Amino acid sequence: MKTILVLGAGRSSSSLIAYLLEQAGQQEWKIMVGDIAEEAARERVHDHHRGTAILFDIADETASTKTIAEADVVISLLPAHLHPLVAHHCLKLNKHLLNASYVSEEMKALHAEAHAKGLLFMNECGLDPGIDHMSAMHVMDTIRAEGGKIISFESFTGGLIAPETDPENSWRYKFTWNPRNVVMAGQGTAKFLKRGQYKYIPYQQLFSRTTPVHVEGLGDYEGYANRDSLKYIEMYGLHGIQTMVRGTLRNQGYCSAWNIFVQLGCCDDTYIMEGVDTMTHRDFINAFLDFDTHKSVEEKLCAQLKLDARGAEIQKLSWSGFFDKERIGLSTGTPAQILEHILNKKWKLQETDRDQIVMWHRFVYEIGIHQKEIQATLVATGDDAVHTAMAKTVGLPLGIAAKLLLQGKIQQRGVVVPMQKEIYNPILQELKTRGIALTEKHIQ
Amino acid sequence: MKTILVLGAGRSSSSLIAYLLEQAGQQEWKIMVGDIAEEAARERVHDHHRGTAILFDIADETASTKTIAEADVVISLLPAHLHPLVAHHCLKLNKHLLNASYVSEEMKALHAEAHAKGLLFMNECGLDPGIDHMSAMHVMDTIRAEGGKIISFESFTGGLIAPETDPENSWRYKFTWNPRNVVMAGQGTAKFLKRGQYKYIPYQQLFSRTTPVHVEGLGDYEGYANRDSLKYIEMYGLHGIQTMVRGTLRNQGYCSAWNIFVQLGCCDDTYIMEGVDTMTHRDFINAFLDFDTHKSVEEKLCAQLKLDARGAEIQKLSWSGFFDKERIGLSTGTPAQILEHILNKKWKLQETDRDQIVMWHRFVYEIGIHQKEIQATLVATGDDAVHTAMAKTVGLPLGIAAKLLLQGKIQQRGVVVPMQKEIYNPILQELKTRGIALTEKHIQ
Repeated sequence: MKTILVLGAGRSSSSLIAYLLEQAGQQEWKIMVGDIAEEAARERVHDHHRGTAILFDIADETASTKTIAEADVVISLLPAHLHPLVAHHCLKLNKHLLNASYVSEEMKALHAEAHAKGLLFMNECGLDPGIDHMSAMHVMDTIRAEGGKIISFESFTGGLIAPETDPENSWRYKFTWNPRNVVMAGQGTAKFLKRGQYKYIPYQQLFSRTTPVHVEGLGDYEGYANRDSLKYIEMYGLHGIQTMVRGTLRNQGYCSAWNIFVQLGCCDDTYIMEGVDTMTHRDFINAFLDFDTHKSVEEKLCAQLKLDARGAEIQKLSWSGFFDKERIGLSTGTPAQILEHILNKKWKLQETDRDQIVMWHRFVYEIGIHQKEIQATLVATGDDAVHTAMAKTVGLPLGIAAKLLLQGKIQQRGVVVPMQKEIYNPILQELKTRGIALTEKHIQ
Repeated sequence: MKTILVLGAGRSSSSLIAYLLEQAGQQEWKIMVGDIAEEAARERVHDHHRGTAILFDIADETASTKTIAEADVVISLLPAHLHPLVAHHCLKLNKHLLNASYVSEEMKALHAEAHAKGLLFMNECGLDPGIDHMSAMHVMDTIRAEGGKIISFESFTGGLIAPETDPENSWRYKFTWNPRNVVMAGQGTAKFLKRGQYKYIPYQQLFSRTTPVHVEGLGDYEGYANRDSLKYIEMYGLHGIQTMVRGTLRNQGYCSAWNIFVQLGCCDDTYIMEGVDTMTHRDFINAFLDFDTHKSVEEKLCAQLKLDARGAEIQKLSWSGFFDKERIGLSTGTPAQILEHILNKKWKLQETDRDQIVMWHRFVYEIGIHQKEIQATLVATGDDAVHTAMAKTVGLPLGIAAKLLLQGKIQQRGVVVPMQKEIYNPILQELKTRGIALTEKHIQ
């Protein structure tokens, strides 16, 4: 009997835990789910006879160590900045660790030690990063096997909402994963390669320099570049490639409206605002505008950011209630915390809401004297507000990876990203049996 | 015989060291000047019989400790982030410390210990911060002594160039202090109070939301808000004030041109660019623009930032050589380092160039049923590229403070900012004898 410990019972955990419990009988697993809110863990486990819900507080070192010591594999869905701490416990206690977050410098530094101890520290094994890597490597390995040379790779993924959900919400967006990450998205500078030129887009330009993306059979979207596309050139084995961009997909119109928050400074998380307890939504926006008693907040905003008063951007903010004289309902907060709180009033997923994941890759490659193109698309729709497409696509790759590991089918050790055939092939295959698969379109 | 140790012999040190050497005979001082470049220290000391030039490397703890141990007072002109380290040495060795930088949190934390040991750690005792505080407190204490209630304080200071210097330079700006600080200026969020409303301006808006400032007898300028004006409400004793803004003064047109660098991301110091060794000025700008072989760099820039191709902003960048196919001349660098390097080709102060400091305060106050206003202005012009107005106004307050301290005329101890009459009055008086004084204009 092997024990899998899942840390974090938040919104991305539902499908992972359901999968692990479903497999637990046949695989002879015990599933422990730990969360700082024990009740949340209990809800996920549902009295399953192979499941145990426990209180898990990473700040309590003694208890954390004791819990992790009982596991064979740890799957962490905790906030990304906590993974290195979990990893240190795993190193000390000789436990494998899986997560769906980007490899941090701190995590990378643990490679040699984890490798020497025979431990797998698998990262970037969710949706994005995760399925994007695996599906891209799958296509690229096929191209390379045919003798093709990849000259361009573009990849955009977005966690959106299904067409029938909230038809009046012209953002075409709701919070389907950690809202804080949505509010903080894009801070820093995006780096990518375009036709052989290195290009840099700072945060203040990111949401106005978007890329149009047409997804066959679905429609037109827009993408903004992720922070560092360059580091994947080496990881994907694409030395000499001319174009390399990874980004985030949104429905048309989202970015120009979101850009208002960026330009005003509403996504700043570095200071506490004054007078939050009595502040209204309207006061919040006004705090980022000039003092002028002769103009309304809307007029000042349009003048400052050169916006059309009847345009789609102002309409979106208005729908979200940003011009309302409604109390925010927080006693204190940074601009980013307040923005998240206001957005959540309209963007919280309702019980019957269905989310939708759209992933789109475009590969251009040369084979002999020919230039060819492949577009690969994944669309996944959630069942409801619990079993979201986000929870499925983040959780299932982790669950499947845990199974492969415990079955002895993954030989890699140390700090790993799922770029190897032995890992991505069986994961993609099992995802396909659950309806999660990319469709490829070859353009000659 | 008392020993004053000056750390740092860079561009702001000339007038301070000249002042200390001039006073050294009468005051019976020995002046030690330490710099990581011993030659720079020697140039400042000029074989003066009361002066000694030494190599000083703060990274060499043993040697640093030995040097500081020989002093009675340390005046640090080192980069601001090194002051806490110097302060720790001073605490251990029981030495007073003076500097012209903002009080950091780390410095503030040393107050109790410095106070208990009877040491003065005087900060913000240069120009801005420094003379701005002292001159403002002088006017405000006068207003309060008359029974006036201050309802508004605005203060802008700029280190500019004299009208006769570089007439063709439409920036009306050159580097007169640490160029790196100029390039990094304004990062973060500016916070101030306007007519009772808290206002926040993020970096991406700072150079487009400027305040026009008319300085009597000089002309029209523009100001951008400094990072945190709010903390001075308490320090100045201005509880209940309606408007409180401290900012930086520039000649008209500077900010809208500088805003191009901010918007493009050229001031980013967080990553190293690719291919710097072969990069031209023009390539540098192009790296922040879309890929488009049908448009020139100038056309792309104008389209991306909605600029007039024949406007004053493009003219300034063009004068500075940003569209030239000239090699940058660095082997590696962050955007901020490269920007500084290119700017320095035209902005480096030439031997006969004269800089000019302009400081402007406006106080509005109520006395009985009357509302009154005082504007106070300081203009200081440099002698040449060595004895700049910047060096005089930063260095002399420090030199005078050191003299007052050694004469036993400053009773304050601990971490101090020059807000007290016993400190600011004699400093302002001696500055006046050297031609550095504010003129006040009373508007009824």
